[in-house]
Amino acid sequence: MKRGFGSDNHSGFSPEVLQALADANTDHALAYGDDEYTARLEELFRNTFGQQARVYLVFNGTGANVLGIDAMCRSHEAVVCAETAHINVDECGAPQRIVGCRLLTVDTPDGKLTPQLVKSRLHGFGFEHHSQPKAISISQPTELGTLYTLDEIRALADLAHSYNMYLHVDGARLANAAVALGCSFKQMTTDCGVDALSFGGTKNGLLMGESCVLLNPCLWERDRSGATPQTDDMKYRRKQMTQLASKMRFMAAQMICYLESGIWRRNAEHSNRMAQLLRSEVERVDGVKIMYPVQVNSLFAQLPRDVWHRLQQRYFFYDWNEDADVVRWMCSFDTTEEDIHDFVNALREEMIK
Amino acid sequence: MKRGFGSDNHSGFSPEVLQALADANTDHALAYGDDEYTARLEELFRNTFGQQARVYLVFNGTGANVLGIDAMCRSHEAVVCAETAHINVDECGAPQRIVGCRLLTVDTPDGKLTPQLVKSRLHGFGFEHHSQPKAISISQPTELGTLYTLDEIRALADLAHSYNMYLHVDGARLANAAVALGCSFKQMTTDCGVDALSFGGTKNGLLMGESCVLLNPCLWERDRSGATPQTDDMKYRRKQMTQLASKMRFMAAQMICYLESGIWRRNAEHSNRMAQLLRSEVERVDGVKIMYPVQVNSLFAQLPRDVWHRLQQRYFFYDWNEDADVVRWMCSFDTTEEDIHDFVNALREEMIK
Amino acid sequence: MKRGFGSDNHSGFSPEVLQALADANTDHALAYGDDEYTARLEELFRNTFGQQARVYLVFNGTGANVLGIDAMCRSHEAVVCAETAHINVDECGAPQRIVGCRLLTVDTPDGKLTPQLVKSRLHGFGFEHHSQPKAISISQPTELGTLYTLDEIRALADLAHSYNMYLHVDGARLANAAVALGCSFKQMTTDCGVDALSFGGTKNGLLMGESCVLLNPCLWERDRSGATPQTDDMKYRRKQMTQLASKMRFMAAQMICYLESGIWRRNAEHSNRMAQLLRSEVERVDGVKIMYPVQVNSLFAQLPRDVWHRLQQRYFFYDWNEDADVVRWMCSFDTTEEDIHDFVNALREEMIK
Amino acid sequence: MKRGFGSDNHSGFSPEVLQALADANTDHALAYGDDEYTARLEELFRNTFGQQARVYLVFNGTGANVLGIDAMCRSHEAVVCAETAHINVDECGAPQRIVGCRLLTVDTPDGKLTPQLVKSRLHGFGFEHHSQPKAISISQPTELGTLYTLDEIRALADLAHSYNMYLHVDGARLANAAVALGCSFKQMTTDCGVDALSFGGTKNGLLMGESCVLLNPCLWERDRSGATPQTDDMKYRRKQMTQLASKMRFMAAQMICYLESGIWRRNAEHSNRMAQLLRSEVERVDGVKIMYPVQVNSLFAQLPRDVWHRLQQRYFFYDWNEDADVVRWMCSFDTTEEDIHDFVNALREEMIK
Repeated sequence: MKRGFGSDNHSGFSPEVLQALADANTDHALAYGDDEYTARLEELFRNTFGQQARVYLVFNGTGANVLGIDAMCRSHEAVVCAETAHINVDECGAPQRIVGCRLLTVDTPDGKLTPQLVKSRLHGFGFEHHSQPKAISISQPTELGTLYTLDEIRALADLAHSYNMYLHVDGARLANAAVALGCSFKQMTTDCGVDALSFGGTKNGLLMGESCVLLNPCLWERDRSGATPQTDDMKYRRKQMTQLASKMRFMAAQMICYLESGIWRRNAEHSNRMAQLLRSEVERVDGVKIMYPVQVNSLFAQLPRDVWHRLQQRYFFYDWNEDADVVRWMCSFDTTEEDIHDFVNALREEMIK
Repeated sequence: MKRGFGSDNHSGFSPEVLQALADANTDHALAYGDDEYTARLEELFRNTFGQQARVYLVFNGTGANVLGIDAMCRSHEAVVCAETAHINVDECGAPQRIVGCRLLTVDTPDGKLTPQLVKSRLHGFGFEHHSQPKAISISQPTELGTLYTLDEIRALADLAHSYNMYLHVDGARLANAAVALGCSFKQMTTDCGVDALSFGGTKNGLLMGESCVLLNPCLWERDRSGATPQTDDMKYRRKQMTQLASKMRFMAAQMICYLESGIWRRNAEHSNRMAQLLRSEVERVDGVKIMYPVQVNSLFAQLPRDVWHRLQQRYFFYDWNEDADVVRWMCSFDTTEEDIHDFVNALREEMIK
Repeated sequence: MKRGFGSDNHSGFSPEVLQALADANTDHALAYGDDEYTARLEELFRNTFGQQARVYLVFNGTGANVLGIDAMCRSHEAVVCAETAHINVDECGAPQRIVGCRLLTVDTPDGKLTPQLVKSRLHGFGFEHHSQPKAISISQPTELGTLYTLDEIRALADLAHSYNMYLHVDGARLANAAVALGCSFKQMTTDCGVDALSFGGTKNGLLMGESCVLLNPCLWERDRSGATPQTDDMKYRRKQMTQLASKMRFMAAQMICYLESGIWRRNAEHSNRMAQLLRSEVERVDGVKIMYPVQVNSLFAQLPRDVWHRLQQRYFFYDWNEDADVVRWMCSFDTTEEDIHDFVNALREEMIK
Repeated sequence: MKRGFGSDNHSGFSPEVLQALADANTDHALAYGDDEYTARLEELFRNTFGQQARVYLVFNGTGANVLGIDAMCRSHEAVVCAETAHINVDECGAPQRIVGCRLLTVDTPDGKLTPQLVKSRLHGFGFEHHSQPKAISISQPTELGTLYTLDEIRALADLAHSYNMYLHVDGARLANAAVALGCSFKQMTTDCGVDALSFGGTKNGLLMGESCVLLNPCLWERDRSGATPQTDDMKYRRKQMTQLASKMRFMAAQMICYLESGIWRRNAEHSNRMAQLLRSEVERVDGVKIMYPVQVNSLFAQLPRDVWHRLQQRYFFYDWNEDADVVRWMCSFDTTEEDIHDFVNALREEMIK
C-alpha cells in the first residue's frame, strides 16, 4: 500500500530499530523483564522522567492505558476524561471489562479538558450510589491533534490532587507533543504533577513499544495491610491482564534505541513538520476547512462529502465525524514532501470534479 | 547471559525472522490486521489446519489462552484442566479475571488428562449453583514434557463433544509435539476434533508470535439473536482484552516465516534432539532421577537439593517442585551439543562435591 | 423518622404484605425458586406480560437492571441510555464491573430518549475499536418523573430492532407509569416491543420485590453451540451475580400479593395523586419553579438555595442538581394530604424568612 | 411440602421475625442503611464481636462471601480453601466473576483445613505468574457438618497472619457451631484472630438475614493514597456488586431480633439436638453408614443406591456424592421428633424392600 495519510501506525519502523533487535539477539536472557535490557531501560526512564519513575513495558496502547487506570482506580472509582478520549472511544470497553470502572466523560470543543470542565463531573463524593472520581485522564496531544500547555497540565494535576485524585496522561504520541512544545518529557509530565503516563513509540517509528509509567510513589507505596511495604502489585496486574511479554529484551531494546538514538525526536519533528506543510498546502485549497489548530502531526478537515468519498478511492484515510463531513489526515515519520504535494494535488482534482 | 537450560524463551530468535521483519518494513500497511501479511497468514492457517480455521494473532501465550477460553465459555461455565496446566498455574488468574470463569482442575500423574480423569469433574449439569463444565483444555506437549497420542486427543474430543463441550489445546510448543509424533499440525488438532488452539512460535525461534485458532465453526456461528449470522465476536473480544496489535503485519510476517521457511520444524527437531542428548547424558550421572518420559525439549530431574542449589549458581534454571527436589531443564533451538556436555560436566562436578 | 418526601423507599410496606409473608410461612418449601409460590408467580407474570414472559426474582433494582443488561449484552457491547438513567448514575458502576460493558449516554431535556437522540450513538458497527451498541435502555417513568407514551416506546423498540438491538425498560416504578397512562403492564411493554424489563415493587409498598423479566424469546433461545436449544443461561447468571435468594417463596409471595391484591394499583394511584396535590399546592408558592411535567409521584423544584437548605433541616429530601438549585420531592404510598399541607406550609415559611 | 431433611433453608422463619418486621414497619426511615435499625444493629455487632467489628448487611450467603473475599483480595490474589468449600463449589463461580481472583483448593478428609494442608498451597510468593495467596477461608461448621475447635481456628489465623494473609470464616451456620462448642461468637472468631466473617441467619430461622463482618481494622484502614484515612471502600463495593438493600431497616430488624431475642440460640440448639436424635436413630438401621462426626445439624449417610432413590420419592433430600452413594440429611429449627421417627421408619421400610 502506498504511503498515505491514514494513520501514523500505517508506517513501518525506523531502520535503527531493526539494528537494535539484531544487536539484542545474542545469547540467552531471562524472560519476562529480568534481563539487562529491561534493567537499562528502567534506568533510562528514571533518567528521563525522574528517579522515582517506574516503567512497565506492555504490548500496545490499550495495555498501557488499562494498566495505568488499574494502578489508579478500583472498580467502584471513575476516570474523568474527554468524550473524545481514546480510552473512552477506541478501546472497545477495555477499561470497563478489565478494571470494571466508569469513565465520566465531558464534551470538549477541542479535545482538551479544563479544570472547569472536569469540575462538572466532580460530585457525589462519599455517596455510595455513585462511582467515586479518582483520576483525570488527558491525551497529550489530544485525539484532535491539539496540545495542552505545561501550565494547563499543571492546573489539571493541581485540581486532581486537591481532590485526592490522580492525573493520567495518554502519551501514545508524547514525542510529537514534546518537540512541538520544545520541552522535555519530564517537564511535560513529572514536573507538572502527572501521576501516571502511557508512553508510546509505536506510532513514531518503532515496531512495537509501549509502556505504562508511574511517576507518583503514592501509586505503589500504598500498602493494603500495613505489613508489606515492598509489595508491588503492578507486576501481577500486568501479567493478569495478559500484558507481560516473555522475550521482553526485544521490546526494551527498541525503546532504548528510541530514546538513546534520538529517533523519537527526529521522527516526531519530521511528522510534525510534514503536518505543517500539509496544512499550508491545504489552506490554499478552496472549500476545505481546517477544523483545529494543527499542532502535531494530524490535520482534521471539513470538505464536501462527495469529494472525500472520491479521495478515499485514491488514498486510505478515516472519516472522523461522518455527520459533520470531517476527516482526519495524519502524517508519519516516513511522509515525504512529495507525498504531500501528490495528495494535495489529488485533493484539488477531486474538489473541481 | 550464557546459553543455559532455563527456558526456551531465554533464547533469541532465528535469523530468518529478522529478515522477515526487514522485508515487511516497506511502504504503508493498514493497521490492526487489515493488511496483506495478515491476509496471507490467514490463508496459510486455512491451508495448515483446514479451510474452516480462523486465526487471531495475539501478543503472548496468556492472550492466546484467554481468548480461546473466552471463545468457548461464558463466566458461569468452567474449563476442566490438569492441575499443572499453564492456564491454571502460570497465568496469575487471567482466565478468572478476564473471562470470569472457573477452572476445574484434576491431579494427574504426568500432566495428561484422560477421559476418566475428566469425567470426575463432569457433574452438576443444570444445577445453577455449580459452574457448568463447557470445555476441556489440554497442553500439547504438557507442562511436564509429555505427549498425548492422536488417539488420546481424539478420545478427549469425543468426550467433550458428547457433553456438548469443547476441546482446547494449549499449543505454545505445538511444533515440538508435531515433530516428536511425526504428524502434521492438522492431524494433531483438527483431525482429532480439537475445537480451539493456542498456537505459539515464540518459544521456538520467533521474536514474538502467538495465536488463537478456532477450528470448529460452532464457535463463531453461534448466533446470539437469530438475526446476525455474520457477527464475529472474536475481533471485539481480542481488542477488549488488550490483545490487538496495531502494526500487525510484523507479527504476521514472523508467523508466515515460521511456517513457510520451515524453521518451526528445524528448530523443534533440534531442541527435541538436544533434550534426548541431555537425557542420555544425565542418565549416566548417578544420583539423578529423570521424572517423566523425555518426549520433547524438556527434562525434569530429581537430585539432591544442595547439588541443584550449587548448580543454580552456575546455570539459571527453575525449581519445579521444591518439596520433591525436582528441577526443570529445557533445551532451546540454539542449544548446542557443547552446551549440554558443559552442563552435564558441571552437574557431575556438583554431584561429587 | 416522620413521613416526608425523600424517597418512595423511605416508606415501609403495605399491611397485605405482612399477611402474605405470614401465609407463606408454613411447612417446608424447596429453596432457590423451586417452590410453588415461585411457580405461581411465573404463571402470573405470563398472564400479565404474555405467555412468553420469563420472570427472574432478584433482590433489588440494581440486580434487576444488571441481570437484564447481562441478558442482552456481552462485555464488548454497549447500552444506549439517558445521561440521567439510574443504570448510569446510581449503580456505582455495577454494569461496568459485572457485565463489563459500556453505557453510551445521551443528554436529554427531560430524561427521555428519542429515536433521534439514540441514533446519535449508533455508529461504529463492525469497527472493533468501538463497543457495539446492542441495547437501548429507558426508564419508565424516567428519573425525572416524566413518562413515555406507548407510541414513544414503540418507536424506540422499532429503532432497536431495526439495528438488531434490544429495548430494555427500567420499571422500578412501572406501576406508577401504568396508572398514569391508564394502560396495562403488557400494553406498555410486550405490546410495544420491549425485550427486557426490570419490574419493581419495593418502591410501591413491598418490603422487597424486584424482578428481571425477559419478554423476547430471542434472549433465551439464542444457542451458543447449535446443540442445546433448552439451555437457559439466566439462572446461572443470576446465581453468579449473587442475586439468587434461598427462601425465594417469601419474595414470590410478596410479588403475588402485589399483583393479585391490587396494591400495585392502589398504591401507585395514591402516590401519583399525592404528587398532583403537591404540585398544585407548590404552584401557589411564589419563587418555586416546577421543572418537569409532574406525571407520576415525584416533583422537581427549583428554589432559592438558602430556602431548601433550611427546609432540609425540617424534612429530609435530596438535592437533585446542586448547581441549578433543583431538589426532588417524592410522594409515597403512605403520603397523606396532611403531610403535603404541612410540608407546603413549611416551604412557605422558609420562603418568607 | 411436608417438613423434611433437604436443607435448613427449606424451613420458613420463626414467629418472632414476623413481629420484628411488623414493628419496624412504622413511619419513614432513610434507605440504604442510614436508618436507626441499622445503627442499632451495628452497635449490636460491636457488642457481639468486639468494638472494632464492622457489619455490612447483604441479601444472601453468596453476597456475604463475595464481599468478604473482595475485602481481603484483589484479583491477582488467591484464597486457600477446602475443595468442598461453599465458595468453591456452590457459588457458580461468583468469586471468580466478581472479584476475579483464584481459589486454591485443598482436598480434605472431613472438610477441615489444617495448617499443613494450607501450607501445601503457600508458594510462589513474589512470582508474578502465580496468583498470590492472600486469604484462607474456612467454613464453620464445614459443609460436611464438622467443626473446628477454637485452637484449630487460632492456628489457621496464626498461619495466615505469619504470611501477611487473612483468615475468613464462612459462618452461614455459625450459630450451630457456637452452641455445639459452647462458646460465644466472639470467642470463635475475633478472639481466635479471624479477620472477616460471613454471618448468616437465614438457615436458622430468619426470612432473610446475612452479613459480611470485618473484624480486623487492617481491612479498612489500608489506605490507597496516603491521604484519606477515613475512606471506606466497603460501602461502594457492596453497592457495586448489587448487594445494597434499599429498605435495609427490615433486614436489620430481623438480625436484631435474631441476636437479641435469642432465637439464634434456641433454633440452633434445637436443630443440633434433632440431628443427634437422627444420628442415634439411624445408627440403629443396619446397612447405613454415617460418614462424618455429627456435630451440628446435618448428617451424611452412605446407603444402597436403590434405597435412597426410593426414599427420595417420599422425602426430598440431596445426593451429596452420587459416586459414593452418600446423601445429606439436614435438620432445621422446625424439625420435630415425630418428623425424625417418621423419616427413620420410612428409611427402614425402604431398606428391607
